[in-house]
Amino acid sequence: MDESTLSLVLFSGTDDKLNAAAVLTAGAAAMGRKVNIFLQYWALDAFRADRVHKDHGVAPEAGTEGLEAYQRHGATHWSEIFGQAKDIGDVAIHACSLSMEMFELKVEDLDPLVDGQEGVASFFMDVDGPVTFI
Amino acid sequence: MDESTLSLVLFSGTDDKLNAAAVLTAGAAAMGRKVNIFLQYWALDAFRADRVHKDHGVAPEAGTEGLEAYQRHGATHWSEIFGQAKDIGDVAIHACSLSMEMFELKVEDLDPLVDGQEGVASFFMDVDGPVTFI
Amino acid sequence: MDESTLSLVLFSGTDDKLNAAAVLTAGAAAMGRKVNIFLQYWALDAFRADRVHKDHGVAPEAGTEGLEAYQRHGATHWSEIFGQAKDIGDVAIHACSLSMEMFELKVEDLDPLVDGQEGVASFFMDVDGPVTFI
Repeated sequence: MDESTLSLVLFSGTDDKLNAAAVLTAGAAAMGRKVNIFLQYWALDAFRADRVHKDHGVAPEAGTEGLEAYQRHGATHWSEIFGQAKDIGDVAIHACSLSMEMFELKVEDLDPLVDGQEGVASFFMDVDGPVTFI
Repeated sequence: MDESTLSLVLFSGTDDKLNAAAVLTAGAAAMGRKVNIFLQYWALDAFRADRVHKDHGVAPEAGTEGLEAYQRHGATHWSEIFGQAKDIGDVAIHACSLSMEMFELKVEDLDPLVDGQEGVASFFMDVDGPVTFI
Repeated sequence: MDESTLSLVLFSGTDDKLNAAAVLTAGAAAMGRKVNIFLQYWALDAFRADRVHKDHGVAPEAGTEGLEAYQRHGATHWSEIFGQAKDIGDVAIHACSLSMEMFELKVEDLDPLVDGQEGVASFFMDVDGPVTFI
């Protein structure tokens, strides 16, 4: 058990990976760890206010059977799990400025789960050791 | 060089990523590090007793030439490399309870390489710093 | 803020992930952190001297709109960002011996950004805690 910050770079925007990231975030927050999240590329795109609840697909490797198991399971949506993690713990979510520029986005285009945007150097200011890339 | 536990979350179930994960596990175990593995989603599916040795494909980006190089190389199967890592070091492999539920699996459905199942909070009890997501 | 080495295992060879990896490397180097990079599989393939500048595609999840945003953005090529990171900081890039063997490559086949090859145990000699897998 450890009390260092868990730093997550979210890159992928499929629902299965975002769900896995949300579960890890909630697990870490429940154990009293601070979580520091940085949204890049397709993960950032998935956090747009008007896209959070659309279908973002799953990894191609899932196959038909895997996709059916995923859909049948009816898990809580990842955005709700991130919301719960923010309620119970110290979880910050920032958008990568470079990716914001790429998609021509403003902070108000994003879901309120996102606390703001920052550059990569600023993200690393709060990084305590390595980062987890998802 | 470091003696902290290497915590790996395995999410992907393609043979190339599982092979990379197995090689990192064996490398860390050989250096005397404890390895703590958590199987989610498609990686868990690949550890079913009746599926370990089936063809799980490689990442789509491999392309024809990459796939041929991979197959020609005839590397040791990832399940054997994980087995060797368990023989030489302290390597624990647990299935994520949520993913077990999603696939409606019981521990006896999994390959004996898997030591049991646990929830994400329990996994984080043994996490020493960040996690590596594969 | 932290001064430990950032250890990155690059597995994926698509341009979007290599770009994300390059930006993280530059960010860490700019904050004074040592960066230790290990090239496996498709990432190694992308560092061949004669392939660095070819089109390596993006993750399938990008979709048409995402790909257009990526191309329109005209970001600095990832190889240049890695070069800049090496100029400003302490960044080492090594090829995984097993992957070199798989692709039947010699060090002289690789871009000069690559400092040499090493085995996974040798890579872990310099690992300070966990690794980031991209």
